[in-house]
This record gives sequence, C-alpha cells and structure tokens, in this order.
Amino acid sequence: MTRRLVIALGGNALGSTPKEQLELVKKTASTIVDLREEGYDVIIGHGNGPQVGMINLAFEFAHKHQADTPAMPFAECGAMTQGYIGYHLQQAIQAELEQRNRNIPVASVVTQVEVNPNDPAFKSPVKPIGMFYTKEEADSFRRENGYTFMEDAKRGYRRVVASPLPVSIVELPIIEQLVESHNIVITVGGGGIPVVKDTYGYHGVPAVIDKDRACAKLALDLKADMLVILTTVEKVSINYRKENQEDLSELTVKEAEEYMAQGQFAPGSMLPKVESCLSFLKGNPNGCALITSLEKAKEALEGKTGTRITL
Amino acid sequence: MTRRLVIALGGNALGSTPKEQLELVKKTASTIVDLREEGYDVIIGHGNGPQVGMINLAFEFAHKHQADTPAMPFAECGAMTQGYIGYHLQQAIQAELEQRNRNIPVASVVTQVEVNPNDPAFKSPVKPIGMFYTKEEADSFRRENGYTFMEDAKRGYRRVVASPLPVSIVELPIIEQLVESHNIVITVGGGGIPVVKDTYGYHGVPAVIDKDRACAKLALDLKADMLVILTTVEKVSINYRKENQEDLSELTVKEAEEYMAQGQFAPGSMLPKVESCLSFLKGNPNGCALITSLEKAKEALEGKTGTRITL
Repeated sequence: MTRRLVIALGGNALGSTPKEQLELVKKTASTIVDLREEGYDVIIGHGNGPQVGMINLAFEFAHKHQADTPAMPFAECGAMTQGYIGYHLQQAIQAELEQRNRNIPVASVVTQVEVNPNDPAFKSPVKPIGMFYTKEEADSFRRENGYTFMEDAKRGYRRVVASPLPVSIVELPIIEQLVESHNIVITVGGGGIPVVKDTYGYHGVPAVIDKDRACAKLALDLKADMLVILTTVEKVSINYRKENQEDLSELTVKEAEEYMAQGQFAPGSMLPKVESCLSFLKGNPNGCALITSLEKAKEALEGKTGTRITL
Repeated sequence: MTRRLVIALGGNALGSTPKEQLELVKKTASTIVDLREEGYDVIIGHGNGPQVGMINLAFEFAHKHQADTPAMPFAECGAMTQGYIGYHLQQAIQAELEQRNRNIPVASVVTQVEVNPNDPAFKSPVKPIGMFYTKEEADSFRRENGYTFMEDAKRGYRRVVASPLPVSIVELPIIEQLVESHNIVITVGGGGIPVVKDTYGYHGVPAVIDKDRACAKLALDLKADMLVILTTVEKVSINYRKENQEDLSELTVKEAEEYMAQGQFAPGSMLPKVESCLSFLKGNPNGCALITSLEKAKEALEGKTGTRITL
C-alpha cells in the first residue's frame, strides 16, 4: 500500500472571490502535486469559511430584497462551496499534473459528515454567519426559524451556528475506493456538509464542522500515515508573539498536552489544529502530524522545517 | 460486467427551491433505486436549469446592490449546483437504499465537460440567464464583459449564453472507476461545468451544455447498455397535441430521423432528447434508449410503457 497523506487546506489557500481563488489555487495545486511526487497518495480536505460566508450572504440579501430568491439553508450553502471550491481545486491540480506529464485522475466528492445532535456545541453556537440584522429582524427570525443571534459591537445582530465534532464521514467508502486506486481526492470541503441521522437517513443541520477536525477524522479512517495541516505560519510556537517566542520543530503528544494545559495555543486558531493532530495520533500511534505553511509544505515534508508531532 | 444504465433526470425531478427539491428527490431516489434493483449499474446525470438560474440571480442581485458580494461567473454557478443538487440526490438515494437494506455507496462527482471554443453555438448564444437589465445596463455589461444580451418582450434585456455540444468528460476516468466498482454515481450535473482547453489546462466558459446530450456522451463513453431520458411525458408522440396525436412505443433510428425531417419534435424540448438518443445509438449499435416519465420509469424499463429507441 502506498503511504497516505491527508492535507488540511486553510482558507488562506483559497481567497475570497472567484477571481482570487482561481489564482491562489494554482500555487496550492503546485504544492499538492509536490507532496504527491514525494510518493504519497494525497487526500485533500479544505476550509470554506470565506466561501460559505459569501454564498450565504448573497442568498440572505437576495432573499430579503427580491421575491424570486428562496431562503437557502446553511447546509446547502456548504454543499455549494464543495462544488465551487472542488471545481477550482481539481482544475488547477489537473493542469499542474499535466504540466509535469503525470496522468493521475483528480476527484472532488460531495461529502456529508455526520454530527451528533446531542453534541454540547449545539447548546452554545459560536460561529457567526451571514448578514447583520436589527434587533427586531433578529427577534423575528428567532421566533420563526429558531435561529440564534449574537449582538456584534454596534454592527447589529448576526446569526451564529454551532461547531460540533465530526462523528462519521458518510461517503468514506467512496473516498477509500478512490484513494485505493491512487487518485487524488478532494473531500470534506468546509469540514463536510453537517448532517444528523434520523429514522429516514440523514438530513442537513446548520453548523460548521472544523475542517482540521474533519481532516483528522478522515486521516484516522483512511489509516493515513501523515496528517498535514497547512496554515499561515511555518511552525507552531510557544510564547507566541512574546519576546521569548520559541518555534517548535518537534513535538510529542505529551509535550503538546503540557503546552495546551499552559494555554500556549490560541482557541479558534492553533489550539484546534494541535488538538486535531493529537486525536489523529492517539488513534494511529504510528502516524505523524505536521503543521506548517503552504509555502513550506514540501520542505517540511522533507524534514527541513514545520512542526512535526508524533506519539 | 453488470449492465450499465445512464439516467438523464429533468429539472422537473428537482423543483426550484431547496425545500421543494428535498421533497422531490425522495420520489426520484425511489425510482433510481428501482432501476438499480432491475440489475443495472446506475449513473445519473441531471439538469440544473432552475437551480443555476436561482444561484446566478442571487449573486447578480447581491453583487449589484451590496459591495460585499463579488460577481460570480456562470461556470462557477454551475459548479455550485453540482454540490447543491448532488448533496440532496445522494442523501435521498442513500436513505432509500437503507430502507431497502441495500449497502451501496453513492457518489456525486464534480464534473467538467469540455466544449469546443469554435463550436458555432458560441456565435449565437440563445440560453437566457439571470436578471433583466435596462438597455443602458446591458450596454455597459456588453462593453465591460463582452456579454451578449437579448431583448425580452417589455421586461428588458437579459443575458444569453451559448449551448455548445459536449466534446469530452474531463472526470471520465473517475466515473469509470466508480461505476466499475458498482457504486451509484451522480455526474455531469447541469450537463457538466463547461470548460475549454488552453495551453495551461482547462478553464470555465459561460455556457449551458444540454444535459441530455451530456448524458448521451456519458452513456457512449461508459459503453452503457441503456440511456434513459426522464421527462414530463410518458411516451414520445408524433402530431403532438393534435387530434391525430400518436404515442410511440417503439422507434428505430431510421424512423426517428424521418419524423425529425417532418419537424415532429419540438426544438428545445423533445428534439434534443431524440437527437441525444440517436447519437448514443449510432455510437453504440447494441444499446437501447428509452424516453419516459419519472413516474413510469420502472414500468418502462420492464417494457410496459415509454418509447424505446433502437437501431
């Protein structure tokens, strides 16, 4: 079996307009093909923060101001981003492969990720999405749709959704087959379309699954050898942005847990990334997790930079 | 090898709001699983007329009236529909399979379809999309973006795009693998994301590929045994809606061509469906094409109704 590498791509690899995205994915594609050339089967998960925000906002605005546009549920907006981002990414990777005379098929798979309806995250939604509303509008949505709103300093009220943990990847058998046959696979876009199971199959819920956690789950399920989380910094640091900042090249699970206990990693930023790596390594003790930047990914895989986390 | 059946789903199988679509796909899913139970590997292509219209309109409107929403190219809107429709369809098919205790994976594959930039269709765009504009606005778009507009009786100016023929299905190797392993595959959504080849890979173009033609191409490429085009009528008719209307149960390619020469089939409606069947049968003389309604699909496959076209 070829070694398997799951890449978690941050939103910074994509940009926030279609034009930007089309440009940025070229660099991303080049890195992805570099990693493939190191001898790995590559599986790509990606974020969708700016993109799902854009689609959700366009629909909310158009729905509010013109009769022709229906309300678009948030899970469906996420499904749209998988088509939209998957299309640009696969096209760029295909082009990059062709430049290098490599004949490797690339697939974007529309992917649902199951969450637990009793996940405590649903009790305290924190992810802001969409437009700002007045108090009256927010109250009316609250009554009619059961939405939760948070007041944002002076700009008004904004809907918030939960960020539950991934429980299972619905399309895993498809992904497994495609990886097994050495295709490059794009999946769990935006952390996956969040769904819950009921008596008749799955249905979508308004939520945002953290893409790093979804990628860790994916890496575990695929028994991947490596989980690579690409972000804006080259290495994980302690005492971040202080005089005594220290960039880490190697980190064990135990050390990482100690740093976490010290509050070294910022919640909503580096903390979920480190936690995702640990959940992968605890389920796959022989695995290796790597946190680095898109630009340095190749060097990091060769052991020259980045932060490498192992059991 | 299991027999292969390509289904072309019409927009009527989907509805025009997310709520409608979620309801309608249940019936569609039931039919799809019925066809699978007849012993075929099933590959589904679907239209996206109302859906891509909805997304394009929401973006045009939001872009026009608020600074935060970027202009969204038409090919990207199509990519979004593949995520959006694929998600609902696969979820409904998965639920239907589970009800019947069948463990068959379902995959929606983001699919590009190559078109020829010299296709004469690009010289005379005919597919209206998006909002109505004033003459001044239309002229300004024309100058800035090279868009083509058509005047619509009193409602204003509306952008039109070309409807070129499908040349090749970029993700065919992925689709072939997934069909080979007996998964249910959803692909060429909306006829596929229209792309043209240039020196550096593919790029999207504003166009609409007829979904029946894309499905015929898919059926040919997959060496399918059957192409089933689902539409609003149970059978193809001659002298349609006249006193002497005759519904056809069997039709040869030669007979179909004679009827076409007589102008029996409406352009933009039954004509492209019949033409798609003929292009499939000419490339695959042992194949069989079937035109019928979603409701009658199972009976039609059993030979009890529908219009069966063979060489």
